[in-house]
Amino acid sequence: MELEKIKHSLSHVLAYAVKDLFKDVKFGIGPAIENGFYYDMEVNLKEEDLIKIEKRMKEIIKSGISFESKKISKTEARELFKDQPYKLELIDEIEESEVSIYKLGDFIDLCKGPHIESLKEIPNNSFKLNKIAGAYWKGSEKNNMLTRVYGLAFESKEKLDDYINLMKEAEKRDHRKLGKELDLFHSEEDVGIGLILWHPKGAILWRVIEDFWYKKHLENGYQLVRTPHIGNRKLWETSGHWGFYSDSMYPPLEVGQSLKSSTNKEEVKESEQFLLKPMNCPFHVAIFKSSPRSYKDLPMLWAETGTVYRFEKKGELSGLTRVRGFTQDDAHIFCRKDQVEEELKKVIDFILFIYQAFGFDSKSVNVYLSLRDPKKKDNYAGTDEGWEFTESTLRKVAQEKELNFKEEEGEAAFYGPKLDFKIKDVLGREWQCSTLQFDFNLPERFNMEFTNEKGEKEMAYMLHRALFGSFERFIGLLIEHYAGAFPLWLSPIQMRIIPVSEKHLAYAEEVAKSLKDYRVDIDKNNETIGKKIRSGEMEKIPYLIIVGDKEIENKTINIRQRGKIELGEMSIDNFLKSLS
Amino acid sequence: MELEKIKHSLSHVLAYAVKDLFKDVKFGIGPAIENGFYYDMEVNLKEEDLIKIEKRMKEIIKSGISFESKKISKTEARELFKDQPYKLELIDEIEESEVSIYKLGDFIDLCKGPHIESLKEIPNNSFKLNKIAGAYWKGSEKNNMLTRVYGLAFESKEKLDDYINLMKEAEKRDHRKLGKELDLFHSEEDVGIGLILWHPKGAILWRVIEDFWYKKHLENGYQLVRTPHIGNRKLWETSGHWGFYSDSMYPPLEVGQSLKSSTNKEEVKESEQFLLKPMNCPFHVAIFKSSPRSYKDLPMLWAETGTVYRFEKKGELSGLTRVRGFTQDDAHIFCRKDQVEEELKKVIDFILFIYQAFGFDSKSVNVYLSLRDPKKKDNYAGTDEGWEFTESTLRKVAQEKELNFKEEEGEAAFYGPKLDFKIKDVLGREWQCSTLQFDFNLPERFNMEFTNEKGEKEMAYMLHRALFGSFERFIGLLIEHYAGAFPLWLSPIQMRIIPVSEKHLAYAEEVAKSLKDYRVDIDKNNETIGKKIRSGEMEKIPYLIIVGDKEIENKTINIRQRGKIELGEMSIDNFLKSLS
Repeated sequence: MELEKIKHSLSHVLAYAVKDLFKDVKFGIGPAIENGFYYDMEVNLKEEDLIKIEKRMKEIIKSGISFESKKISKTEARELFKDQPYKLELIDEIEESEVSIYKLGDFIDLCKGPHIESLKEIPNNSFKLNKIAGAYWKGSEKNNMLTRVYGLAFESKEKLDDYINLMKEAEKRDHRKLGKELDLFHSEEDVGIGLILWHPKGAILWRVIEDFWYKKHLENGYQLVRTPHIGNRKLWETSGHWGFYSDSMYPPLEVGQSLKSSTNKEEVKESEQFLLKPMNCPFHVAIFKSSPRSYKDLPMLWAETGTVYRFEKKGELSGLTRVRGFTQDDAHIFCRKDQVEEELKKVIDFILFIYQAFGFDSKSVNVYLSLRDPKKKDNYAGTDEGWEFTESTLRKVAQEKELNFKEEEGEAAFYGPKLDFKIKDVLGREWQCSTLQFDFNLPERFNMEFTNEKGEKEMAYMLHRALFGSFERFIGLLIEHYAGAFPLWLSPIQMRIIPVSEKHLAYAEEVAKSLKDYRVDIDKNNETIGKKIRSGEMEKIPYLIIVGDKEIENKTINIRQRGKIELGEMSIDNFLKSLS
Repeated sequence: MELEKIKHSLSHVLAYAVKDLFKDVKFGIGPAIENGFYYDMEVNLKEEDLIKIEKRMKEIIKSGISFESKKISKTEARELFKDQPYKLELIDEIEESEVSIYKLGDFIDLCKGPHIESLKEIPNNSFKLNKIAGAYWKGSEKNNMLTRVYGLAFESKEKLDDYINLMKEAEKRDHRKLGKELDLFHSEEDVGIGLILWHPKGAILWRVIEDFWYKKHLENGYQLVRTPHIGNRKLWETSGHWGFYSDSMYPPLEVGQSLKSSTNKEEVKESEQFLLKPMNCPFHVAIFKSSPRSYKDLPMLWAETGTVYRFEKKGELSGLTRVRGFTQDDAHIFCRKDQVEEELKKVIDFILFIYQAFGFDSKSVNVYLSLRDPKKKDNYAGTDEGWEFTESTLRKVAQEKELNFKEEEGEAAFYGPKLDFKIKDVLGREWQCSTLQFDFNLPERFNMEFTNEKGEKEMAYMLHRALFGSFERFIGLLIEHYAGAFPLWLSPIQMRIIPVSEKHLAYAEEVAKSLKDYRVDIDKNNETIGKKIRSGEMEKIPYLIIVGDKEIENKTINIRQRGKIELGEMSIDNFLKSLS
């Protein structure tokens, strides 16, 4: 909590410094946030101004002055902040008759506190202003755009430096930057921002992952299904998506044709409305409903890599993590009550297997068990018994599988409890990944019954499940986790053969043939060996294979492994053996 | 031509018979068509009436009367057909001052002829009325719906019978019927007709085909790309699709958000329009344009299984062949002029390879070379030289590859000449399949240049190419070609293990493990062996493997191959060897 106070106090110092240096600043709010603080203000600032402001902040801190807090009436407050329209708005929103203010030297701010007592408590060089950005007042696009100045703040200079280094490393690994450098994908205004175009190297990476995904699903007893990207509006009304979720959906596509009626008398308009799918579920339900189902048919595990479209505001789009269309590695499990526990265990094992397969530490996964709000039971679909059974079974299997999980009451969606899995990348950052959710809503809405052993109709249990969550985000994560230096099996180009000169090209092609089980290319450019090697290193290719006179004579190849490791000369056979 | 005259004469006999039997018939037109004839009429008919009409037709034919033709003035004709509004419409459209009529007994029809002289020329029992359907007058939905009576007509009773048998066979093989029986896919009103939902058995068939497709593309030097299903309207305007093709496209999806301008003064609406893609090309072009390209980068062969959406009228939708969304097995080839011939040859080889791989006779493929209309050269994109070069190169490679091709002047799209491939199924019916098209339009519109060896900008040649055409249609074709009895590698379930009773289940599971490289299931139903075998046969599973006491004792399996072929008892190893 001490650090929180420091951060919050630093935001006052920031405002104080800006007020000193710039005229007519109108202040919004200035809270403490993760890793630092910010202050929103109406003022014309440039990135370069941050140095000047930081310098002034350090002078203020050096003065070692103290915070003084005071309660005043709203009328006094309105007079005090009469030139500060945003503060006046905040005063109006305060319900109490008195408001609290904090004074730091000349600078008085409307603030609940708490703060440190004196600026002397701020550790030396433990903060840094790091960026400015635009931010709407109160987060609404209807309001003015203010300037948000961000600062970092830590317990010590060392921690600040660590964090800055981590950020630098993260920047180097930024999937948007590497996506461009490694020629994996792009997104552009002319096609639509947030709609990803996968270039050959990105598409093969995708394909390798998808292949593995399909293979493992079939091995794990899943069946595949395949569904369209649009569906009749009525379907989305029945499912409830159009009612609850239409803000994230694209508007309806209306198609129609004029027809003569069968009696030839009047013209009828045959019109239909379609919606782009934001989820795959209702289609899987339609397949479930296409035949009568018996208890003997269950469990059914149906998987699809289904591309869904959700509307996101343009300003919120980012790389592969916030997009307007993404591919869920989706599956739905339809089962009987007596199968629920077993199926949950299998999904958890599958999730952990996938993390290991892609090089993540499955032990460091943070899991969140979202439960309903026990005070608002009426807000949820399904029955009390259903919730109690699924929540307790989720808890039980999470314990048995020794997941590192946290329970969160009131965090469940209205349709069912869930487990969310967040994995840590090599920099320790959390990424939302797998999810495992019960759904009481769709079975009710679509009447998803099966015939039980007694010949009676019974409602099926329905589970939504994704391992990656989204192919796009997962690939973004892989790029950052590996800094683009993918393990051999994922590398778009696994090996590059570099002939020393043109006369070694024929041999290079022979070598390529012997390595045809891998993704191999040949660098035919008329460049120096050094340049070709550097280019292969830039592309982060796992193996660069150099062939010249000596290699031809000895029927060998000369191998450089990624990371400048010289494996030297060896036979192709030995090289292949070393890989398997 | 004699048969054409007979068909056309039969349509008069049909009208004559209907006029005899029903009051107040208003006649439309009655032409000869492939395999028969039809007549459109405004009359209230039921399917059952066809027997009565056919009987009356036979009586008329037996009378052996002759056709009499005559030219009369339009005024006379208008008087003669004063109760026939459709005929009056046709008379008005005739440019000549006289019109030709044909008289057959009591029945006079407006008709250009030619006809047979006497009904005696019609071979005995060589025709049959086969169905009625609704048809808009002149094919426009704005007009009245008439009743179309269809008849079959051939040179002899034998040929008619052959055709009827072929149709019966085709009906048994109908992919819509088999799709349901084999539980492969469905389409429904609630989701949207023409939007296919692939059930587990259909989706695995799709996946096996797709897998093969990808593997072969990578082996053939293609790279993969992956693109979204929607794109900014501007993209489709630049490409020309929205201009030329909007009738087949879904309407724009408009999304927007209200924003304060940066000066905080006025509200701006940030609005964007997206269109569902009817084709993948502009996205591939956007990837091409994302980097400067050099002559050394070419050829680039980019493949994608891209799902596109095209609007089709509801009444025209049918099974997997006319749908509202389908997946093109698309590729674009970007190359230099000196690479065109080689690339064309490679594509043709690839097409023929694919036909063989899926069990079609690549020798019986009919190919159509669509050329521009030499009289309307101004209607085409590109240059004269470009057209002459591409048309002659297409002709040259078609000859060299000994394709059975026909040239069709004026059949090319405005953007370039093409080769279309139609394959014959086991019943000899033609299916539109592969296509190989040049495009002069998109390179011009998007300025798709590369830097040539001289360092100058040069326009790339662009080829569109699909092997299957559409996954949906190709799977429809496969279903009908094989009558659902797919070859082993394509069968959704390749082997089913049938334990004689419950006590043989453990051994069945052991056997399943040994066969895990195949798609195997176990019939755990509590039914008789006979019933289980019949059910496996109905599902057209290639191998049914029966295990009971004897097999357990001998460590063997007992195999029935599809088509009631008893392979008998053998060891699993021997069975596996026999498959490879």
